[in-house]
Formats: sequence, structure tokens, C-alpha cells
Amino acid sequence: GSPLVLIAGPCVIEDEERTRDIALYLKKLTDEMDIPFIFKASYDKANRTSGKAYRGPGLERGIEILKAIKGDLGIPILSDVHSREEIEKAAEILDVVQIPAFLCRQTDLVREVARLARAVNIKKGQFLAPWDVRNIIEKVLSEGNERILVTERGTSFGYNNLVVDFRSLPLLRREGYPVIFDATHSVQLPGGQGTASGGQREMVPCLMRAAAAVGIDGLFLEVHPDPEKALCDGPNSLYLDALPELLSTVKSIDRLVKNRADGIF
Amino acid sequence: GSPLVLIAGPCVIEDEERTRDIALYLKKLTDEMDIPFIFKASYDKANRTSGKAYRGPGLERGIEILKAIKGDLGIPILSDVHSREEIEKAAEILDVVQIPAFLCRQTDLVREVARLARAVNIKKGQFLAPWDVRNIIEKVLSEGNERILVTERGTSFGYNNLVVDFRSLPLLRREGYPVIFDATHSVQLPGGQGTASGGQREMVPCLMRAAAAVGIDGLFLEVHPDPEKALCDGPNSLYLDALPELLSTVKSIDRLVKNRADGIF
Amino acid sequence: GSPLVLIAGPCVIEDEERTRDIALYLKKLTDEMDIPFIFKASYDKANRTSGKAYRGPGLERGIEILKAIKGDLGIPILSDVHSREEIEKAAEILDVVQIPAFLCRQTDLVREVARLARAVNIKKGQFLAPWDVRNIIEKVLSEGNERILVTERGTSFGYNNLVVDFRSLPLLRREGYPVIFDATHSVQLPGGQGTASGGQREMVPCLMRAAAAVGIDGLFLEVHPDPEKALCDGPNSLYLDALPELLSTVKSIDRLVKNRADGIF
Amino acid sequence: GSPLVLIAGPCVIEDEERTRDIALYLKKLTDEMDIPFIFKASYDKANRTSGKAYRGPGLERGIEILKAIKGDLGIPILSDVHSREEIEKAAEILDVVQIPAFLCRQTDLVREVARLARAVNIKKGQFLAPWDVRNIIEKVLSEGNERILVTERGTSFGYNNLVVDFRSLPLLRREGYPVIFDATHSVQLPGGQGTASGGQREMVPCLMRAAAAVGIDGLFLEVHPDPEKALCDGPNSLYLDALPELLSTVKSIDRLVKNRADGIF
Repeated sequence: GSPLVLIAGPCVIEDEERTRDIALYLKKLTDEMDIPFIFKASYDKANRTSGKAYRGPGLERGIEILKAIKGDLGIPILSDVHSREEIEKAAEILDVVQIPAFLCRQTDLVREVARLARAVNIKKGQFLAPWDVRNIIEKVLSEGNERILVTERGTSFGYNNLVVDFRSLPLLRREGYPVIFDATHSVQLPGGQGTASGGQREMVPCLMRAAAAVGIDGLFLEVHPDPEKALCDGPNSLYLDALPELLSTVKSIDRLVKNRADGIF
Repeated sequence: GSPLVLIAGPCVIEDEERTRDIALYLKKLTDEMDIPFIFKASYDKANRTSGKAYRGPGLERGIEILKAIKGDLGIPILSDVHSREEIEKAAEILDVVQIPAFLCRQTDLVREVARLARAVNIKKGQFLAPWDVRNIIEKVLSEGNERILVTERGTSFGYNNLVVDFRSLPLLRREGYPVIFDATHSVQLPGGQGTASGGQREMVPCLMRAAAAVGIDGLFLEVHPDPEKALCDGPNSLYLDALPELLSTVKSIDRLVKNRADGIF
Repeated sequence: GSPLVLIAGPCVIEDEERTRDIALYLKKLTDEMDIPFIFKASYDKANRTSGKAYRGPGLERGIEILKAIKGDLGIPILSDVHSREEIEKAAEILDVVQIPAFLCRQTDLVREVARLARAVNIKKGQFLAPWDVRNIIEKVLSEGNERILVTERGTSFGYNNLVVDFRSLPLLRREGYPVIFDATHSVQLPGGQGTASGGQREMVPCLMRAAAAVGIDGLFLEVHPDPEKALCDGPNSLYLDALPELLSTVKSIDRLVKNRADGIF
Repeated sequence: GSPLVLIAGPCVIEDEERTRDIALYLKKLTDEMDIPFIFKASYDKANRTSGKAYRGPGLERGIEILKAIKGDLGIPILSDVHSREEIEKAAEILDVVQIPAFLCRQTDLVREVARLARAVNIKKGQFLAPWDVRNIIEKVLSEGNERILVTERGTSFGYNNLVVDFRSLPLLRREGYPVIFDATHSVQLPGGQGTASGGQREMVPCLMRAAAAVGIDGLFLEVHPDPEKALCDGPNSLYLDALPELLSTVKSIDRLVKNRADGIF
């Protein structure tokens, strides 16, 4: 198996400088650690629990910021889209266009992303079984796009809670496309703070290690220099400065597992 | 409490004549039974399990058909929208614009519907707790629209299965808006047939009666003259000719419960 | 269908006088309302969340109390057993011996109860699917006992929560034995108070009505003159004096539903 | 952290020779691999799905066999008990007495095991939240026994399915006692074959690796030389000859994780 890819960045673009600082930090760190890296940041959070929550700079300004960062740092960029009219503009600059989990069943959105994006990251809905993702993959393939990633981010488990069923990782891999584990959204407690989602940041390291041990192609993490002050998803974001140690462990597990002959890959 | 309202119709507009026939049948039946009636039909099924499934006539033709039926029969009409650009056209003719369950967390869609629609039906996502609906209601209210319906349609329960937690009905009613029970989508087995959702039509009557006994403001049913040949959601649609008896029972339970003094309403 | 039976009483025998008072109250009420009645009280709560919780007077003293009440009031009695050695003594006096939900998979216990008890009430485990109960029924039948009741009391739904899947009631009825709905244990929040289970008493009336509307043979309720001071399961027990009104509604729904011809029974 | 312990053996004692062969194989393997080992075999399966299933040789003969194997091979032995009267006899010879998951809430059984057993393995019920185990630990401690193991074996997830919530492992470890991951029961599909539980043997290796990566004190595995012919739990038992490679991977992950400084242990 190929070594683990890291998809990481802040939940949302808070401002250009901070976003660039995070991207630069992550680029340096992954260069040093020899980890393939894709920078992730959202220009719009269209599905916040509360209508009053911060959403980001919007499509125009957000894409401008991501373009500048991409040009300056020479890193691939991933972001998510929420309606068909955003896709053309977003796909121009993005290396990977992401289908949000809540929107993974919207046929038109999926097809238009498939048609216009270089690569597509399908986030598995919290309401889907692993095998249900095949139908979404088919929708992407029907547009002739085979550059597909599939991301696990937890499944509804009672109210205001998610559980990661790690059996899903090998089941998803059987479809033949790289499987990413989104460790920070998987510890969300949806709606768990009344007007915002809670999160269990302390559980992210465990689940990252578990996923690497099961066998994944990539890891998705939301990070922030100061998650307590983050404008979005702070409770489940990782501290930037915790990354070197966490990634080092995960990378070791990934290497160990992919070097074994017992039928994982 | 006011007597139960019925929202019913085919899952999708198959053709004008068949759709009109269903509407006419339902209008006559509900007139005879003295049940307030809203006709429901979708012009586009944007989130079918498979990309190959029938989706409907589309916005333009669909709204034209619904407008003609509305004009001829003089009945209020409900349909669902899936993207912002549909809303203006749809809201012109529709009496109630419905937010689909998978889309209930999309802030822009919810707000635009709230801004343009006469009345809004919020379908509770399969991934939401009853109390999470408050945040969606707030998004609608923030646009100055107070004509809100909230619809229960089941909650994710393991894989390819839904469960109706009937505690949700009184919890939702506490928010102060009419609560509808969608009995036919509640028996879906999402993705349960591989490339389509299965359904347990035989469970609809039980769940309808249960909801009426708990206490609801309205009942939502998908019906078809021949569900085995329906182009969408056949396995969970009711046979049209089963309706008179089923509605009669439900109406009796509704009346019985709403006449009691034991604190239901 | 036959009219609804009521199985009711306190969670646990607190003392003889209080237990007798409750039994007397229930006997009078059900006589007046013409509802067949079985008195329920446990002599030992062997599976309390905490080891420090009150458990009851124990087998010897408890059976003595139940025998006296049975003799004086002439009412049938149901209680639960927790180990094989209790069964012989308990079965002498009890009309129905109940298998607790946590113990429903213990083959020896089930068989010994089947062998010795006049009638057996199988509580469906919180961890079972409705169709799994068939295997337990087979174990009872294998001892030649066909006087079987099956009781629904909710299913695990995430952590510290239960949900009632009302589809289970018709599924259980298909097995051919009377189906009881335990409305008060169904609203437990298992372990939800740290060292005790919480409960949602306010949800009992809704669920009772729902079950009657779906169609059941009997209703199981734990009641107490002052649930706030009850030594066991207070949070989900009903106030005794709320019963007349609640039962009257449920009885009306039961009668209405059983008189319909639409295929319920 | 101390190196991983292995608890392994057949689901049930089929006959003395086969059981001894398995124990010998496991002893040799774990000696070579320098893995601390406890042999596991049940003398009675008291909670089989069907009453017709094979249960084992029973207490008397079973304990005799285990005693002989223990004497000959000099290995510690774990087995489970199902009623109070078995405990004294079983505890004489067993090094660890196990509380079955379905019985973990039975206060008398837990206390009597605590009183008589050298060490107690609490299997977490499929219906419990991780934090609910504290109350069971308290019941054991109340008898003065502090030699406690806690075993995760999956949680009810919809019908006929379990999910392992790997967040439970660090939560359970906070209680201060060694945490074991039962990889083979965690892939059971309870009641999934109608009259027997199904299982997903192919998922065991993934979940073993995940658990080792999260951080555990021990691993529990049911093994058989020919699982397709096993008299109990074949579908989720591992082939004996798959063990060397699987354990080698898990041991490497365990060592890697326990040598890291990032706050796992």
C-alpha cells in the first residue's frame, strides 16, 4: 500500500493570514515527515446547527484566498461545495472537491461535481451503511470521473452521538477507491451543545490510531492553532502543535500495517 | 385540538393524467370524510438511491401540472424543493414548500424557502434528535415566516433501517407548530434493496394509528393506485383503495384522543 | 380481539401494607372499569444499577406477602424470578412467572420456569430483535408449556436510552401468543442517573396510547402512590391517581381498534 | 504499559483431547512469541440462541477437564459461570472467573464471583454505555476483590448487529483496571442466522489491530482448528493456524503504541 496521505486544515477560513499560517505550518511539517499533504479549508459552512453561527468568507473571497495560498505554497487544495452554482468556480482552483456528508445523496450535486472537479471526495452520510456508498460512486463514474476518494466520518448512534464502525473501512476499500478517515468529525456530538455541535477532541488520537491500524489511504483532520477560540467546530479540532507527535505515531502504525503480509492490502 | 389534516399524494408525478386522477380521488374521499386535505406530489426526486432511477418531469413541467390540478380541483398543494434556484418558481404556486429531510440542515435553502414560501414543512432529518429541530425552526423564523409545519419521518436505527421514536411527537409539539407524521417514509428501509430503498407497507397502518393516538396535527401519506408499478417508493406507498378504511380508523382515534382531558393537547 | 388486560403494581414490595393498599386500589379500579387485572410486584430486584440500591424483602418474605394478598383479594399475581432455585417456591403461588429482560437468553432459567410455572411472561431483551423472541418461545414450548405472554419493553438506542419500535408489536403477535406492552420500563433511561436508571414518566401516557392503537393484548404498568419516594424505578412509575383517566383513554382506543375490520387482529 | 496478554481458546469444550490440543498449541505459540497467555474454554453455554444447540460437557466434567489441562500444561485458566451454585466449584480451579455480558447486571452473581474468584473478568453488556461499567466494578470491590478485568465485546446497533465503539477502551481504562478487547464476540451478528448467531470472521483482524492501536491490556479470541465444524460460535471463531501472523502484527502495534509518549498510557 501507498503511504498515508494527510488532508488537514481549519474547519473554515477565518481570515487569509491565519489560514495561510496554518497551511504553511502543515506544509513544513508534512515535508519534514515525508507525508503527502492536501490542504483543506471551507469558504462557507452552509449547514451549521444554528443560523447565527459564523459561516466563512463565502465563495468569491474564499476561493481567492485558497488560490493565493495554493500559488504561494504549491500545495493541493480540498474544499467542499454546497450547491450546483458554486461548483464551476470552486472546481477551477480546487484539486479535490468534497461532497458534504449531509448532501451525499443529492444526485445533481454529485454529478455536477463529478463532471467538473479534478477529483471528488465523497463524505459518507451519517445515515448510510458502508455498502450504500456504491450507489454514490456509480453516480460519479456515470460522468466519466474515476478520481474518487471516499471518507468515513461516523454513523448516527442514538441521539446527538456518532459511532465509528471500523468494519466500514475494509468494506469501503472493496469498492476500489482510496478510503480516508475523518478523525475529527467522527468525534462530533451533533447538536450536542444545543445551538452547536459538541466534540470529543480527546478521542481523536485513539480513533486516528485505530483507523491506521485497520488500514486507510488517508487521514482527514481539522486543526487550529487555538481550537478554544475557533469560529467553527472548535470542540473537535486538534491543536496544531499536537500534530507532530500524533502524526508520527500514526505514520509508524501505517507503515507497520502496510508492510505485513496478512492480507490487509 | 383541531381535527387531523391529511397530506397525501404520489411520491412523484408520473404523468399529468394519473396525478390528476389521484388528486381527484383524494379530494372526493376527504370531502366525504370531512378531512382537511393538502395534495402532495414531487416534480423531481433529487436524492434517489441510484442515479439511474426515475426522477419526475422536472421543475418547469411539474409546476405546470400542479398548477393545472390546483386550478381545476381547488385544493392546496405541497411539494419539495432541492436547490435555491427552484424555490421562487415553486413558491409561486405551492401552498406549502417542503424541506427534504436530507436537506434540513442547509441554512441557505431553509432561509430561502422561509423567505418565499407561503408555508414551510420541515422534514426532520433521519440523523436529528427531536430537540435539534428547534434550530431549524429558528432559521425559518429569522426570515419572518411563522407558518411552519414539522414532520417526523423516522430516525436512523442501525443500517438500512429506521425506527419511529414516538416520544418525538410531543417533544416536537412543544415547539409550538403543527406536527405531521409521515407514515410511509417512516417504514422505508433506506438503501435496503441495493440500488433502491425497500419499504414495509404492511407496517404503515400500525404506525398511523400509533401517531394518531399519541396526538398529531396531520398525517402524511404517499399513495398510488398500483404501488407495485410505482416509479418511486412503491414498497412503502399505500394502495389508494385501502385509504377509506385506514383513514376512518385514524380519524376516530384522533377524535377520541383530542376529546380527552388528560393533558394531551 | 379480547379486551385489554392490565398487569400493574409497584416495582418492588416495599412493605406488606403499602403493597396491599396498591393491590386493593387497582382491584377496585379495574373492577369498576371492567378491565381484567393481574397484580405485579417483585420480591427481589436482582439487577439494580447500583449494588447499594434497595432490593426488596427477598423470596421467602416476599412470596408470603404476595400469597396473603392473593388470598385476601382474590387476584392473580405476577412476579419475576432471577435464578433457578427461586422458581419452585415462586411458581407455587404465582399465576404468571416473569423472565426478566436481561435474563431472557438464559436457557436453564427459561426452561425451568416453563416447566414449573402456570404461565410464563417473556420480557424481550433490550438487545433482541422482535423475531429473535421466537427462539425463546421454542424453549418454553419444549417443556410443554403453551401459556406464554411476550412483553415489549424497548430496545437499546445509543447509550442510556431506549426506543420502542412499535413495528415489534404486530411482529410479536404473529408468533401466536398474547403481546403485552410494558409502558413504564420502555421510558427508562438505563443507567441515566449515574448510579440509577432515569425515566421519563411524562412519556408513559403517549406510549400507552400508541400501543393500544397499534393493537396489544395487555398493558404492563408500574405504579406507586408517591413515585418521588419510591424505593425503585420511581422516575418511570406512574402516580396511582393518574390511572383512572389514563386507563379510560387506553380502553377506549383498544375497543375502537379491536372493533375495526381493517386487518389488525 | 505492560505487554498485551492473550486470552484465547475454543468457545466451548467439545471433548478433552481437542481442548487439550488447542491449549497446547496456544501455549507453545505464546511461549515462542513471549505473550502472556490465559486459556479460555466454557464448560456450559447457558445462553445459546436456540435451546437445541450444543452446550458443552457441563460443570462437573468440564471443570475436571480444565483442571487436568491446567495441571499438565501449567497455564492459567478462564471460564464463565452462569448461576450462583456453579461459582464455588468453578472458582476452585479457575484463575479468572468471567461474568457473561448478558449477566453483568445480576448483582448476586457478580458479588458471589467477586467473593470466591481469584480474579473477575466483567464482560460489558451489549446494552451498557462504557461509563455504566463503574457500577459493576463497585459491586466487585464491595466484596473486597480488586483483581478485576473489564472486557469490551461490542454494543447493540440496530437489530442483529453489534458495533464496537472504540472510544469505550480509553473510557473503560480510566476506571483503573486492565481492559480486554474481545475481538471475536464483537463481530457476532446476534441471532443473525435465525436459530443461531452469525459472525464476520473476516472482520476480526481489523478490529484486533484497531484495539491494539487504541491501547488495550489484553486481547480475547475464540479459536478453533476448524471453525466451520465448531459446535458453537464457528462463524466468528478464528482458524488456529491464522494466529501466528495475526498475533505478530498485533504485538508489533501494541509495542509501538506503548512506547510512544503521546499520552496513551
